[in-house]
Amino acid sequence: MSKKLSIGLFGFGVVGEGIYQVLSKTSTLHADVKKICIRNIEKKRAAPAHLFTTQYDDILDDAEINVVVELIDDASEAYQIVRKALAAGKAVVTANKKMLADHLTELLALQQWHGSSLLYEGAVGGSIPIIRNLEEYYDNDLLQHVSGIVNGSTNYILTQMFNEGVSFKEALQAAQQAGFAESDPSLDVKGIDAANKLVILLLHAYGILSKPAAHLCVGIENINDKDAVFAREKSYSIRLVAEAYRLQDGSVASFVIPRFIQKDHLLHGVEKENNAIVLQSSIADEQFLYGKGAGRYPTASAVLSDLSALRYGYRYEYRKFAGEKRRMANDFFLRLYVGFENWDSVSQADFEWIETFRCQENYNQIIGVIKASKLHTVNWFQQKGVSLIGLPDCIVENEEVARRKLKNHVLRLAGARENANTGDKLGMLFKPQWN
Amino acid sequence: MSKKLSIGLFGFGVVGEGIYQVLSKTSTLHADVKKICIRNIEKKRAAPAHLFTTQYDDILDDAEINVVVELIDDASEAYQIVRKALAAGKAVVTANKKMLADHLTELLALQQWHGSSLLYEGAVGGSIPIIRNLEEYYDNDLLQHVSGIVNGSTNYILTQMFNEGVSFKEALQAAQQAGFAESDPSLDVKGIDAANKLVILLLHAYGILSKPAAHLCVGIENINDKDAVFAREKSYSIRLVAEAYRLQDGSVASFVIPRFIQKDHLLHGVEKENNAIVLQSSIADEQFLYGKGAGRYPTASAVLSDLSALRYGYRYEYRKFAGEKRRMANDFFLRLYVGFENWDSVSQADFEWIETFRCQENYNQIIGVIKASKLHTVNWFQQKGVSLIGLPDCIVENEEVARRKLKNHVLRLAGARENANTGDKLGMLFKPQWN
Repeated sequence: MSKKLSIGLFGFGVVGEGIYQVLSKTSTLHADVKKICIRNIEKKRAAPAHLFTTQYDDILDDAEINVVVELIDDASEAYQIVRKALAAGKAVVTANKKMLADHLTELLALQQWHGSSLLYEGAVGGSIPIIRNLEEYYDNDLLQHVSGIVNGSTNYILTQMFNEGVSFKEALQAAQQAGFAESDPSLDVKGIDAANKLVILLLHAYGILSKPAAHLCVGIENINDKDAVFAREKSYSIRLVAEAYRLQDGSVASFVIPRFIQKDHLLHGVEKENNAIVLQSSIADEQFLYGKGAGRYPTASAVLSDLSALRYGYRYEYRKFAGEKRRMANDFFLRLYVGFENWDSVSQADFEWIETFRCQENYNQIIGVIKASKLHTVNWFQQKGVSLIGLPDCIVENEEVARRKLKNHVLRLAGARENANTGDKLGMLFKPQWN
Repeated sequence: MSKKLSIGLFGFGVVGEGIYQVLSKTSTLHADVKKICIRNIEKKRAAPAHLFTTQYDDILDDAEINVVVELIDDASEAYQIVRKALAAGKAVVTANKKMLADHLTELLALQQWHGSSLLYEGAVGGSIPIIRNLEEYYDNDLLQHVSGIVNGSTNYILTQMFNEGVSFKEALQAAQQAGFAESDPSLDVKGIDAANKLVILLLHAYGILSKPAAHLCVGIENINDKDAVFAREKSYSIRLVAEAYRLQDGSVASFVIPRFIQKDHLLHGVEKENNAIVLQSSIADEQFLYGKGAGRYPTASAVLSDLSALRYGYRYEYRKFAGEKRRMANDFFLRLYVGFENWDSVSQADFEWIETFRCQENYNQIIGVIKASKLHTVNWFQQKGVSLIGLPDCIVENEEVARRKLKNHVLRLAGARENANTGDKLGMLFKPQWN
């Protein structure tokens, strides 16, 4: 039933070495590492010298090697390796989410053309088996949304800021010291790593092929202690969340933004480097998958599971992409919190309306609604000094729902004005274009 | 790629009707219900009359029907249906955990013999895709333990007792009113339903075929407010947990008992009818799957996912059973709390040693260690008035570890006696058979 795997390994960093060691020790996995391609042949390695090479082709041209495990950092180099390996009919396992997100279209075509299998469970959610579950288990029309904490490094930083009361900068340093953040952390803290993972999730959840830049993506680097105070007042936590949300018209809203998470929400208590994903399906209700995100072992674990699946000839069928795929939504609105010091740094005209604002200790906080597509055309909210954070239930489906919400808000506002002594300086309508 | 499913449905209760409705409305699932077998043809049903029959063979003899969905209550009748359907080469989907647990051996042989597929994701953990994940994703030697809250009804009762401070009896009534407990709740509250599910988990986690009665099984019906007070003192919650735990010698300890759950444990906050499973693997660390357990929709959701998998010819391969299956452990010990009013109801001689006891308001509480195999031969702990609850980390691997623990305990005890004013009346060693 099962076949023996002969593996060519690219990269021998912490994950690669971990996998080599587990495979060497565990004969029941029926997988041997035949060759390991590295950049620096001089470096001392914890494996026999005859296994190492610096030549890609020593692996790619070896007909005996039936599986390539790609674990190098450089995404474009990784793509070249994966492309050639698939074309040579070899199965490939990778966890390189950037490479995948940038090249999914080509990688789908290559698999189809050559009949080879590309597995990448380790690319999203560390050890959480989310790709295969979306692919195999939620294979029907009933999936409503997928939202997840998919970047362990930013989650570690946000947890530190909240629990220890430190600044973003100090929290980032702590994450780097703990080994959960890269020396260049910008991919993580700007949300780009999460957006890469969202691209992969969207394909397996809804059959949507997209590019990372197509999704609204806001990082956490501007979040400060005043935002944290606001969160604590409301018993929220702040988490960087990648979300794919099916609207009533069947299209899918997708974005990566920091979010206020209510106390009773499943993502509220996900701390440190952990990852977690909430799936909402129309009949199963909410499901929650949780596990270690960042670090060598979670990734190694997912890679090993992919190897195990390859022994039985497993491949992603991309059924949702091949079948009734969904389209990305572009008509939805987001209810957002924006914190800032300087009024010049926020374009009030971009809001559909503003519900509340307050000013404390020279820090301004607005809650208002902005059309998501508007945020693709402006960038003031990415500037230093501006925190943009999604409210719980931040999605406003479409213009009709937005109008209704605005109307309710106006009514509430009238009531609040009569009742003058509410805590906040309650609201101006900056741009009431609807009535 | 995918094939069209023609379904024969046995049973048209809430789950059956739900599935019929979803399939009728969702053409993309490519599955039609051709015939529905029910007991009472007179009853008014929410489906066209020509679909119904009372004759099993109208489905079993229909060559066009390629999938049987079995959703009837009676486990032995269900077994007859499933057996015949598999023998006729039809695929079968069921969620009948009692039927499965009682007949897994035969059902494995039938699938093997006839090449037919039997899927039962809905049998354990409601909507949580635990069977397929154990089967496909944790297919290696690295799984250390699986512990879960797999009975929504008892979890609802325990949550009510804790959060609302009501008695077991009142909580049971509340569960029945909320539709989470059967009118005869004994299978649930005695832990037997959880033990049935443990049998299924053991097969897919470790390749172990067992009978429900082979596992130590303690229910929740004797748990009372004084046990709850003890738990609250220590910031524990109480949950009924099914556990399969791989010991260092490779054998697997398995049992269903109420457990004290520490505040930082993933199962601590699982409330009401929810189910949750923690998987510990040696490299991925802990993973946590959470979702709705009891009720029509979670089961319907799992059944639909099985149908979706059948379209692509999926079957469980039972790789771990076919490969390096593990054996059940019989040499381990459990560290337990026992609460009781009457000293006659507890056999002190069955303890290896007792660490502490205390008496408050005529209620006695012992913490001590008992050999698990001993608990298979006595039943005082099942009697009315005796609460048996596992401590966190209740497993003591084997006699050697037990000896070491006893020795440490004796040393601690000596220290405690010198230091007289500890809160509890600290301990007697009832039976220090080791030294």
